Amino acid sequence: MHYEKIFEEIFHELQLTEDKGQVAEYIPELASVDPNQFGVHLTTVEGAGFSFGDAQTQFSIQSIAKVLSFVMAYGRLKSEIWERTNLEPAGTPFNSLLQLEIDMGIPRNPFINAGAIVICDILVSQLADPKEEVLAFVRRLSGNSSIHYNPRVARSEKDSGSRNYAMIYLMKSFGNIDNEIETVMDLYFHLCSLEMSCEELATTFLFLANNGVVPWSDERILSPSRTKRTNALMQTCGFYDEAGQFTFKVGLPGKSGVGGGIVAVHPGKYTIAVWSPPLNSKGNSYRGMLFLEQFTTVTRLSIF
Amino acid sequence: MHYEKIFEEIFHELQLTEDKGQVAEYIPELASVDPNQFGVHLTTVEGAGFSFGDAQTQFSIQSIAKVLSFVMAYGRLKSEIWERTNLEPAGTPFNSLLQLEIDMGIPRNPFINAGAIVICDILVSQLADPKEEVLAFVRRLSGNSSIHYNPRVARSEKDSGSRNYAMIYLMKSFGNIDNEIETVMDLYFHLCSLEMSCEELATTFLFLANNGVVPWSDERILSPSRTKRTNALMQTCGFYDEAGQFTFKVGLPGKSGVGGGIVAVHPGKYTIAVWSPPLNSKGNSYRGMLFLEQFTTVTRLSIF
Amino acid sequence: MHYEKIFEEIFHELQLTEDKGQVAEYIPELASVDPNQFGVHLTTVEGAGFSFGDAQTQFSIQSIAKVLSFVMAYGRLKSEIWERTNLEPAGTPFNSLLQLEIDMGIPRNPFINAGAIVICDILVSQLADPKEEVLAFVRRLSGNSSIHYNPRVARSEKDSGSRNYAMIYLMKSFGNIDNEIETVMDLYFHLCSLEMSCEELATTFLFLANNGVVPWSDERILSPSRTKRTNALMQTCGFYDEAGQFTFKVGLPGKSGVGGGIVAVHPGKYTIAVWSPPLNSKGNSYRGMLFLEQFTTVTRLSIF
Amino acid sequence: MHYEKIFEEIFHELQLTEDKGQVAEYIPELASVDPNQFGVHLTTVEGAGFSFGDAQTQFSIQSIAKVLSFVMAYGRLKSEIWERTNLEPAGTPFNSLLQLEIDMGIPRNPFINAGAIVICDILVSQLADPKEEVLAFVRRLSGNSSIHYNPRVARSEKDSGSRNYAMIYLMKSFGNIDNEIETVMDLYFHLCSLEMSCEELATTFLFLANNGVVPWSDERILSPSRTKRTNALMQTCGFYDEAGQFTFKVGLPGKSGVGGGIVAVHPGKYTIAVWSPPLNSKGNSYRGMLFLEQFTTVTRLSIF
Repeated sequence: MHYEKIFEEIFHELQLTEDKGQVAEYIPELASVDPNQFGVHLTTVEGAGFSFGDAQTQFSIQSIAKVLSFVMAYGRLKSEIWERTNLEPAGTPFNSLLQLEIDMGIPRNPFINAGAIVICDILVSQLADPKEEVLAFVRRLSGNSSIHYNPRVARSEKDSGSRNYAMIYLMKSFGNIDNEIETVMDLYFHLCSLEMSCEELATTFLFLANNGVVPWSDERILSPSRTKRTNALMQTCGFYDEAGQFTFKVGLPGKSGVGGGIVAVHPGKYTIAVWSPPLNSKGNSYRGMLFLEQFTTVTRLSIF
Repeated sequence: MHYEKIFEEIFHELQLTEDKGQVAEYIPELASVDPNQFGVHLTTVEGAGFSFGDAQTQFSIQSIAKVLSFVMAYGRLKSEIWERTNLEPAGTPFNSLLQLEIDMGIPRNPFINAGAIVICDILVSQLADPKEEVLAFVRRLSGNSSIHYNPRVARSEKDSGSRNYAMIYLMKSFGNIDNEIETVMDLYFHLCSLEMSCEELATTFLFLANNGVVPWSDERILSPSRTKRTNALMQTCGFYDEAGQFTFKVGLPGKSGVGGGIVAVHPGKYTIAVWSPPLNSKGNSYRGMLFLEQFTTVTRLSIF
Repeated sequence: MHYEKIFEEIFHELQLTEDKGQVAEYIPELASVDPNQFGVHLTTVEGAGFSFGDAQTQFSIQSIAKVLSFVMAYGRLKSEIWERTNLEPAGTPFNSLLQLEIDMGIPRNPFINAGAIVICDILVSQLADPKEEVLAFVRRLSGNSSIHYNPRVARSEKDSGSRNYAMIYLMKSFGNIDNEIETVMDLYFHLCSLEMSCEELATTFLFLANNGVVPWSDERILSPSRTKRTNALMQTCGFYDEAGQFTFKVGLPGKSGVGGGIVAVHPGKYTIAVWSPPLNSKGNSYRGMLFLEQFTTVTRLSIF
Repeated sequence: MHYEKIFEEIFHELQLTEDKGQVAEYIPELASVDPNQFGVHLTTVEGAGFSFGDAQTQFSIQSIAKVLSFVMAYGRLKSEIWERTNLEPAGTPFNSLLQLEIDMGIPRNPFINAGAIVICDILVSQLADPKEEVLAFVRRLSGNSSIHYNPRVARSEKDSGSRNYAMIYLMKSFGNIDNEIETVMDLYFHLCSLEMSCEELATTFLFLANNGVVPWSDERILSPSRTKRTNALMQTCGFYDEAGQFTFKVGLPGKSGVGGGIVAVHPGKYTIAVWSPPLNSKGNSYRGMLFLEQFTTVTRLSIF
């Protein structure tokens, strides 16, 4: 398909809509981003790439990184992971403590904040140097050894992280945290600070469209069955309280971040990453969601 | 594929597992069903059919019918439907009033009880003779003019329906019910009383695997886009508080009922219906869930 | 004390404050009341009476009647009553279903709507002609045989009673309702429709200030111990989500209604009833609350 | 009255009941207490004292200290205190985060953990050396300069304090904590570690029975109005989720702690402290509650 032409057309359509989104403002690094930047990149499993706009500009991928830390833990553990976190859609706003209290410290799924913190706790238990090893893993997936944490973002996340601290302490009170609070949170805040471009994101997630194998390096990251399950998990849990909307309108598994990025996977076919900083009321990229809805409508390529 | 052989093999594997399920007991008609019955039927969009076990025995499809009433309303209304019900996974047990109260009388999605009651209210507003027209619609989809409501089941549902009455009154108090309570509930209880066999169920849902068109009659039921969206909705909301599990383990959109039936759709390929009365703790068929998990694992046919 | 002079002074002070209350509008009979009416009446256990303003005008006592139905049931039952309702403050807004669901159909206390409905269910089980016998009981307490239900108010309550129906059906689903829904609700709606003046209210509640005995007739209504307990219950549960405020600022047990009435009891000394229709955001009489706060401050007569 | 005889009789009655309570076990210092110890002490405002059993043995007063820190803050602040904490009964178990989240970080009242932490935050803002000044205040009230914090208890509280940390971080995320987390928590954990005997407790609380003045030193602690209000607050909020029960059965304002102590106030008359380590399911002294119920029944001395 002429993806680049399609990208351009949808982009121009979106320009006509009255933009209602707002960039995240809880940390200075996100608040100061130019809201008009817009990028999209699609990579096929065969290796073809299609870019539009600011597709090579790095941005804060934020919660999108939760898929990567989950994959790293999931590749190392068997079913034990599901004794520590559930795998159901959240049903309440993404940072709610209510659910965590009712469910005795077990998060609803590994892609909400509480669940991602539990995954970090697991990685701290499993890895000798968690921050370095997670970074090395991401670099290998992306094929780019310059991917980095942004220490200022990590520091800002920590400074405004009271709610995340409330969650880890609550989980600890139920016995669902094994390691030192600060060690776990340090990994978590660094994870959220990873920076990538749309092109790098699409590349990094390509193994999920390719049965668990990185196409260019032939490295197996997950078994075919676990790859499918990771995609399934993104489908039901990848968009906070808007997973149903995204599944309904876009019809692909994916994950969003408050930096305005979204990555989606079409199993067997391609990955696509889109970036537009202003967010809708649910914390997902306002134009990113619309763009992907239009894209799967025009191309008739959803999994359903 | 040799589906029938696969069915048989999985069935025998399941015989070895210690069955933990229990048949629904809240109404006599469900409590008295022989728990050892087991049927499965797969129909391809090309018209091939594969059966195993009690695939021709009719049973109470219960909540599976909520997809059919939704499709009927969705085919008649535009976006107004989404002013009356949300489309997000429930996040709390399937008959909870908590969510309904927090969300001011708007159900989480049309497949939980509260949402299905709102859909019934919409159909009562739209149709001259709702019970007859819904039945005629189902008969047309199934190609079987003898499909019927079971009046004793409908009556039992009403007799034990206090919680459903609580929900409709709560929604009414928020202004989200337009018609007479008893008229709406009468349609709802009859809907739940529909009886079909696995073969009839698989046939009835085939339009959802075929872009919205009934293959043998060429009748268009939904547009391609709405067909995809209905499948997407089943994926995130079709299994009460276990939608994540089903998506994760089975990887197909589907819908379950407390009669022990499950129907699943592989878009572009087939529909499959399985029936085994004993339920797991979440109210889904215990062996039906395991069967479909094994089936998509063995055949490597999930959408992810 | 010169109560009448104190009443007048406080009333004039209150005139100076900017009134922020609003009359209840969910039924026409309450919405059309003249909001400027104001009455207060104090009766001592020795029989002295002190009036101010519209103290002889009858108004809809609404939830205040819940104390009277409770007393009638409490006088007939032993501890069984506490298997049907708890006796703790509600902690959530007065008509919430959330608590009722978490506590499996057991209301927090007999003075919230759900609890009062359970008390009506108990009275329907206990009495041959519940509506007539409750009325006769109230007439005996008040010494006024013309006290009556207002049938138009009862009918309006029923017409706007969806939320109360939601609650009774929810409790029924948990097995906490024994009788026909409509019979119980008919008693409940009539109970809410009772009309009394401040003078009649103060007189009716006098037995609670007099160890359980009606002073002028010497009829024992409750044992001394149960009288104390009923007062204690009003203290912690008499003001919806504002029981703490009332206890803190007024320091007397009491009960309010959305008709704008409040009755308070000083054990061993007096009862006082005040009426001003506009309500604060919690559903209690705006000026009635302020009046009683001033009254116990000026007279230094609280129980604490 | 012959209080000591009454104490002895009730104590012997209680010996006959099958004791169902269990000592608190979350910290070693409480778990290792001899559960058979039992003490009671009553002090009249005129200075008469009546003891029974282990009335001179010091124990961990735990949450009872929350009244003392509240009084210290309340004596220094005007209504600002009510912008930081509400004053309504909790309605949910005493350490629930659910309410705190719904109410945007404002605790229900100053006697639940979250509210007491806010009071500590206020004291840290107000006092130069909070821990020392609070201790000096308690020593002045008790007339005993040897009252002390137990540093091992304070340390154990901190070690098992994850849930309290979750609460302070949650409140901080809503902007309701001004000072350093560790400074506030250090004061809080020390407060909980105060040790007193029944006699010392009864003496310490005597100003609340005496219009705000310490009888033997004539020091005014609170104005008469604030004294009444503090008593009212204990009445509605002093017993976690059992305030209604205590008010109903005992009929005096009071406060309990998980060390098994309870202190109650009869305004104008006396204070009484009872101690028995095993707790009921709500976290209040099992025999202490029963003792006080019997005591006010036998003496007919409740405020209602």
